[in-house]
Amino acid sequence: MKTQIAIVGAGPSGLLLGHLLRAEGLDVVVVERASADYVLGRIRAGVLERTTTDLMDRLGLGERMHREGLPHDGFNLADGERLIRIDIKALTGKQVMVYGQTELTRDLMDAAPGRDLQVIYEAGDVTLHDVEGDAPYLTYVKDGKAERIDAQFICGCDGFHGPSRQAFPASVARAYEKVYPFGWLGILADVPPCNHELIYANHENGFALASMRSETRSRYYIQVPLDEKVEDWPDDRLWDELAVRLGPEAGARITRGPALEKSIAPLRSFVFEPMRHGRLMLAGDSAHIVPPTGAKGLNLAASDVYYLSEALTGYFRRGDNDGIAGYSDRALARIWKSERFSWQLTMLMHRFPSNDPFDRRMQVADLDYIASSVAAQTTIAENYVGLPL
Amino acid sequence: MKTQIAIVGAGPSGLLLGHLLRAEGLDVVVVERASADYVLGRIRAGVLERTTTDLMDRLGLGERMHREGLPHDGFNLADGERLIRIDIKALTGKQVMVYGQTELTRDLMDAAPGRDLQVIYEAGDVTLHDVEGDAPYLTYVKDGKAERIDAQFICGCDGFHGPSRQAFPASVARAYEKVYPFGWLGILADVPPCNHELIYANHENGFALASMRSETRSRYYIQVPLDEKVEDWPDDRLWDELAVRLGPEAGARITRGPALEKSIAPLRSFVFEPMRHGRLMLAGDSAHIVPPTGAKGLNLAASDVYYLSEALTGYFRRGDNDGIAGYSDRALARIWKSERFSWQLTMLMHRFPSNDPFDRRMQVADLDYIASSVAAQTTIAENYVGLPL
Repeated sequence: MKTQIAIVGAGPSGLLLGHLLRAEGLDVVVVERASADYVLGRIRAGVLERTTTDLMDRLGLGERMHREGLPHDGFNLADGERLIRIDIKALTGKQVMVYGQTELTRDLMDAAPGRDLQVIYEAGDVTLHDVEGDAPYLTYVKDGKAERIDAQFICGCDGFHGPSRQAFPASVARAYEKVYPFGWLGILADVPPCNHELIYANHENGFALASMRSETRSRYYIQVPLDEKVEDWPDDRLWDELAVRLGPEAGARITRGPALEKSIAPLRSFVFEPMRHGRLMLAGDSAHIVPPTGAKGLNLAASDVYYLSEALTGYFRRGDNDGIAGYSDRALARIWKSERFSWQLTMLMHRFPSNDPFDRRMQVADLDYIASSVAAQTTIAENYVGLPL
Repeated sequence: MKTQIAIVGAGPSGLLLGHLLRAEGLDVVVVERASADYVLGRIRAGVLERTTTDLMDRLGLGERMHREGLPHDGFNLADGERLIRIDIKALTGKQVMVYGQTELTRDLMDAAPGRDLQVIYEAGDVTLHDVEGDAPYLTYVKDGKAERIDAQFICGCDGFHGPSRQAFPASVARAYEKVYPFGWLGILADVPPCNHELIYANHENGFALASMRSETRSRYYIQVPLDEKVEDWPDDRLWDELAVRLGPEAGARITRGPALEKSIAPLRSFVFEPMRHGRLMLAGDSAHIVPPTGAKGLNLAASDVYYLSEALTGYFRRGDNDGIAGYSDRALARIWKSERFSWQLTMLMHRFPSNDPFDRRMQVADLDYIASSVAAQTTIAENYVGLPL
């Protein structure tokens, strides 16, 4: 098979990129290791920046998102007692949209056939070839048969564990990483959320997050040591701990219910440079990971995809190579700023095993300062709604 | 001797407090371990917040400060190449005043006799007694003779190593401390400054600061490992390193000259709680230390002294004990925020032995973000000019 652009990975980044390129009339094929059901089964982030919702609207795919999603004007930082509201609407003029990554992926997936966006699921052993030359290609195995796709460009949207980043020679690449000494234990339940806006809490016992997917489905998290297991946290113990960490007011409003899903995810900051090598470009989690504090992961993937679609459109429509050449630097400038925000919010809101009493007081002082300063609230708000593209 | 208020320490905090209380007609005696010349010989900070200059003006002691001091509208953060100007005047409507702590102390000292502010220098073995009761007193030795001052209140303005903090029983007190793994090597020289505003630089080699006392006297610092000695840094080596760390433009403008003073100071964050016990109140360095990054030390002492003079005036003029009772909480609220600012600016601008490549990139990303965000610049500016009293 021949195409202009082969995309590895049919998660939200790969599908969003595919749609943006198809909307410009370009030839695209997406290959995905897993099945469509598996892709939709992954529970991920749920807060979309305006830059992300704008892309869905531009594609004409935002209808369900606007119908079912919850636009939020603000969110809260908590210190175990007080709520510090960050009024993002008043401070930046923008809202964010609470809409599950799963739902966004489904919208993109459902729209693919009608827009001739070819997605090949269950493609095993995806391998990238000759990315340094003018004629890169992909091989994979589908239904036991070896297949090949020749492309002018390959886009790696295949996540942290995918093959695309591995195709960069070690000599040209550099990775930056920080692994945090705790994980997030998450619970999804069909109960109304305890608060109409998100609450990020830094309690003496550790971090907690009250979030939601809809008005009837809640998503909560607590920070736990890395060596704990889901089995250590029966539902009741988890609800009890959430009630403590979210503080007396919000804690008292928690509605309990059986866990639809419960899992522990590690927290990591990771950036891989550069994001282009020859005719291979990375986007999203294949090149960078943020800790989930601040919900930047999917939104960063969306801004990568926006820059990348512009670069590829410029190349194929106007023969302009500058966008391709500058893609890595352009994307990384925004990525590093978002990495900074996610890292700083993670440092502010979690208990670290290495924290001494002075460090703890610095967190409290930082929250006190934020509560008292419009400028400090604005820095948080402008990062939360998404820095300019 | 009997007085209403005995002040331990005739540095800037003790003298400023003494003058403020004298201006309200209260009886004050200041005792100081060292000689007046010794006090004036200590080289310290040189950037005054508006809150501090306002106190001097209120006392009618700001005349020389306004004549000889340099009002600054901004300062710069640098990353080894670029200067990021923080336009504090435009962002906050306020300026800061470059005027050496030594000069301010001299103004306060010179005005003492004319305002009946009694200062007893070279008072040895100052000891505090009965601070928990209604009749505290000080003893000391002067010219070989044991002396005693009975007072209704004792104010400890005697710095980090003075006796006042030691008079708090361990059972009521808690200290928070962070010692940084480097020191500042400072040089004072009679040469014009390389830049008309301060430059705080975070270079690959470490931190540097270009500062000044006047248009003909410069004060520079570089971060050095704690185990280095002044003798390791002959003037030429220090000028060479400053030229590198301040970046090509400012570095090229350095005028070299012989060191009038050269010393290495450690960096420390320290807060002691509470700041009052019975009839003893602490102010300034006796209760808290900030690293010099951001020049908060003297200014925090000035805000303590402001709160304390209000509390004591309320007590003696109106019989109001609330100011005394609330002094510690009121002062500490501002102190913790300033500790936070000084700590964060120190973390942002220095190389730490524990920094890995990710940490370094977070510093760079933070500087990039600050360069791009008015809100981020405003948070720095509003702390630099001094948070509201």
